[in-house]
Amino acid sequence: MDERTSRAGGGTLVDEVMEAVRRRITSRTLAPGEKLPSIRRFAETMRVSKSTVVEAFERLVASGVIRSRPGSGFYVAGHTLPLALKEIGPRLDREIDPLWVSRQSLEASPAMLIPGCGWLPADWMPQAGLRRALRTLSRADDAVLADYDSPRGNLDLRRLLARRMADHHIEAGADQIILTESGTQAIDLLCRFLLEPGDTVLVDDPCYFNFHALLRAHRAKVVGVPYTPAGPDVALFAEALAEHAPRLYITNSALHNPTGATLSPVTAHRILKLAEQHGLTIIEDDIFVDFEHDPAPRLAAFDGLERVIHIGSFSKSLSAAVRCGYIAARSDWIEQLVDLKIAASFGSGRLSAELVLSTLRDGSYRRHMQDLRERLSRAMSQTSERLKAIGIVPWIDPGAGIFLWCRLPEGLDAATIAREALSDGIILAPGNVFSASQGAGGFLRFNVAQSADPRIFAMLEKSLSTSA
Amino acid sequence: MDERTSRAGGGTLVDEVMEAVRRRITSRTLAPGEKLPSIRRFAETMRVSKSTVVEAFERLVASGVIRSRPGSGFYVAGHTLPLALKEIGPRLDREIDPLWVSRQSLEASPAMLIPGCGWLPADWMPQAGLRRALRTLSRADDAVLADYDSPRGNLDLRRLLARRMADHHIEAGADQIILTESGTQAIDLLCRFLLEPGDTVLVDDPCYFNFHALLRAHRAKVVGVPYTPAGPDVALFAEALAEHAPRLYITNSALHNPTGATLSPVTAHRILKLAEQHGLTIIEDDIFVDFEHDPAPRLAAFDGLERVIHIGSFSKSLSAAVRCGYIAARSDWIEQLVDLKIAASFGSGRLSAELVLSTLRDGSYRRHMQDLRERLSRAMSQTSERLKAIGIVPWIDPGAGIFLWCRLPEGLDAATIAREALSDGIILAPGNVFSASQGAGGFLRFNVAQSADPRIFAMLEKSLSTSA
Repeated sequence: MDERTSRAGGGTLVDEVMEAVRRRITSRTLAPGEKLPSIRRFAETMRVSKSTVVEAFERLVASGVIRSRPGSGFYVAGHTLPLALKEIGPRLDREIDPLWVSRQSLEASPAMLIPGCGWLPADWMPQAGLRRALRTLSRADDAVLADYDSPRGNLDLRRLLARRMADHHIEAGADQIILTESGTQAIDLLCRFLLEPGDTVLVDDPCYFNFHALLRAHRAKVVGVPYTPAGPDVALFAEALAEHAPRLYITNSALHNPTGATLSPVTAHRILKLAEQHGLTIIEDDIFVDFEHDPAPRLAAFDGLERVIHIGSFSKSLSAAVRCGYIAARSDWIEQLVDLKIAASFGSGRLSAELVLSTLRDGSYRRHMQDLRERLSRAMSQTSERLKAIGIVPWIDPGAGIFLWCRLPEGLDAATIAREALSDGIILAPGNVFSASQGAGGFLRFNVAQSADPRIFAMLEKSLSTSA
Repeated sequence: MDERTSRAGGGTLVDEVMEAVRRRITSRTLAPGEKLPSIRRFAETMRVSKSTVVEAFERLVASGVIRSRPGSGFYVAGHTLPLALKEIGPRLDREIDPLWVSRQSLEASPAMLIPGCGWLPADWMPQAGLRRALRTLSRADDAVLADYDSPRGNLDLRRLLARRMADHHIEAGADQIILTESGTQAIDLLCRFLLEPGDTVLVDDPCYFNFHALLRAHRAKVVGVPYTPAGPDVALFAEALAEHAPRLYITNSALHNPTGATLSPVTAHRILKLAEQHGLTIIEDDIFVDFEHDPAPRLAAFDGLERVIHIGSFSKSLSAAVRCGYIAARSDWIEQLVDLKIAASFGSGRLSAELVLSTLRDGSYRRHMQDLRERLSRAMSQTSERLKAIGIVPWIDPGAGIFLWCRLPEGLDAATIAREALSDGIILAPGNVFSASQGAGGFLRFNVAQSADPRIFAMLEKSLSTSA
C-alpha cells in the first residue's frame, strides 16, 4: 500500500501530516514565525516517509500556512511582522531606540521626574482658557457637538491660521490649509503622500527622535545631515543630495528639536536653492513657533509654499489632550491630501478644532504664550547654570523654547547615565535617540520646564562622579 | 572650440542647458510629472548639439531633477504622486469612486438632503449627554486637560470597553485594548501593522467604500467575496483563499455596511476554520454593535482574539465630532501596535476618551441607544414602504441599524440616478462605490435616519419614470 493513501481513519497520510502541523499552530505549540521541526524529525515522529512530509509541507506552503526559506527550513507563516515594524519594536538596548524616550515619558507615573520628555507640565498650560473653552463648547450648535467636520477642517480656524502664518510672511489661503489630529499625524499624512517605500529622506543629525520612528514605519531610508547652530551644514547637505537623491527633507527652522538652534537667513537661502536644483520637497515642522522671542526666517516664507510644506500643532503650547495639527501646502497637493485624510482617518476632530479656535480668539492663548515665554527664559537660565555647575555644558544658548542640548564631560555615555537615572525614577533623553549617525552618545537633551527639581542635578552629579 | 566648454558668460554649454531646464521647472513652464521636449528639439532651441543636451539631461537625472523612462523620454521629477494615491484621487467618473460619497456628504451644505451618507443627523445624537460631559470635563484635573494620554489610552475607558465586549462573549483584558482616534484610524493602524505593499486583502462585495480607499492607500490588492444575507459566500471565500493567499480579511459581522445583513453562526464557524487553515488574519469592524436588537455572533468571540482583531468606535452612535475608536487584539500584537501608534500619531485624544467615558458611565449613552434603536426601527419601516411604493426594493429587511440596501428596477443605473440627484441637491450612495467587482450598479444604499424628507422620494420617482 502506498503510504500516502488512506490509513484507518480516512484521508491520506499527507492530510494527516498537514492536520498535525495545523493543530500545533492553532494550539500555539508552534508560534507564528517559529521554525518547524526538520522533515526527517517530523517523518520519525509521525511514522511516515520523508517524501510524505515533503509533500505535506509543500501543500501547506501553497496554502500560506507555512513558509519555506531556502537553505534554512520551514517557518510558521501568518503573523510575522513587516520588516519596518520589527525595526521599531522593542530592542534589548532600548536606550538608543527612537521610541525609548516617548514610551518612558508617556508611561511615567506622576511620581517620576521627566526632564527628558518633550512637553510642558500640565500646570504650565492655559488651564483657565481651556476650561472656559469647554464651557463655551457645551453650549454650541448640535452639529458642532456631533457631526463630522468638513474635509479640510474648521474654516474659521483655517482662516485664523492663515493670518498667523502671514505674520511670519508665509502666504497661504485658508483653502491651502488642512487640519489634522496632530503635528505627527500631519507628517505621517505627508509621508504617505510623498514617499514610496525605499525612498530616501534627509533629516537633521540630531533631530526629533519620532521622525526616525515614523520614517521607518514608512520604510524610508533615513540619511542624517549634521546640524550646526545656524541650520544644517550646507556643504554636507549638498553632498547628501548628490549622493542619495532624497525625495524629502524634514526639519524645524526655528527652535530646532533637540538643539534649540535656529536657521540663519543665508543657510535658508542656500538650502532652498539646493532643493530647487534637486527637485527636493521640504517639510518644515513649526510646532514651536509661538515660543520664539524674535521671529526667525521660515523656509516656507522664502519659498512661497512651492516645494516647502509647512506644518504645526498646538500640542506643545495649548494642550496635548486636545489633538489639533495642520498642514499648509500648494493647493493641488492639499486637494489630494484631503482624499488621503478621509481614507486614513475620515476627518479630524471637530471638537478639538473648536477648542483651539476658542482659545485663540478670546486672547487667552496669546496672553498665556507671553507669560510662558518669560517663564521659560527664566527656567532656561536656571537649568543652564545648574548643569554647568556639574560639568554638563549647553551646546548653544537658544534663548527661547524648552530644550537645552548639552554635552557631557569627555568620555561619558549618555545611554549609561539614562539607564541609571531610570532606576532612580528620572527619565532622561540620551543623545543617540536623536541621531541617525549614532554620533551623539555624549549628549543629553533637557526640557527646562521639567528640570526644576534639585534631585535631577543631585542624581546627575553622583552619576558623573562615579562614571568619571 | 568644444561646444561643451565655456561661452561668453562662463560655465559650460552643458551647464547652460541644465540651468534652462531648471528655470522652466522653477517657473512651472514644465510642471512636475510633465514630459520634457525631445533632445532634438531642445538642441535646436538652445542652439547646441544633441550630445550636449544628452549630457545635460543625464546629469539632471543623476541629481534627481528629471527622470528617464526608457523608450518614452525624460520627465520632470519631484512631485509625481505615488501610484496608490493617484488611484484614489479625483476621477472623471467620480460617481464610482470610493471617495465620492464621503466627499459629497462631508462637503454638503446644510440645505442638501443626504440619504446616501453614513451617519445620523446631529439632532439624533445624545446632545444633552454630550453637553453634560463637556461641563464635567471643564472641571477635570489639569493633567486631563493638557497632558498626553498613556500610550494605550484611558485605562478606565479600556476597562469599560472590556466589560462591554464580555457581554458579547469576547474575552479581552484592558491591556489587550488600545484607543485610536476613530474606527478608520484603527483599521489604518492595523493595515500598517499587518500588510506589506502588494499583499492581498479580502473584503465583502459589497463593503463599506472607505475600505477600498484605505486599502489602495496601503498599496494592497483588494479581492471581493460576494456577500449573502448570512455573511460571505463560504465556497467563494474558500476559493479566494486558495487562489489569492490573502493576508487579511476585513468585515462587519453584525449590521454589515451597506447591506445590513448579519453573519450566521454556521458561516462564522466555517470562515474561521478556513482562516485557521490558511493563516488568515481577520479585522472585525463592529462600529454598529449598539444598534443591534438581538446580539449576533462575533468572530472575535469564537476565535478568542487569536487571529481575529476586533475594532469599534463611537462616531456613529455618540458623536462624530468626538474622535474615539479602539482595537482589541492579542497582547503581543497590542504591544507592537502601541509603538506604531506613537510613531504615527503620538497618542490618541485624551479629551475625546474622557467624553466617551463620561457618557458611557452616567447612563446617558445607554438610554440614548435604547431610544435610538426604536426610532431607527420606525424610520426603517417607513423608508422601506416609501421605497417599495416607487419600485425600489430592499435586498433584505435588516430590522435594525441605519442602512437599507436596495435594488433598482431592472436596467436602471444607480450612478446615473445619483448624478441626477446631486443636481437636485440630494446625495445618494450608488451601489458600485461599495463593490470591488463593480457588480452593484443596480443598487443604492439608503440611510433611514436621513430619508424622512418626501422630496427624496419625489425625485427618485421622477428619475425612475424618465429612465424607464
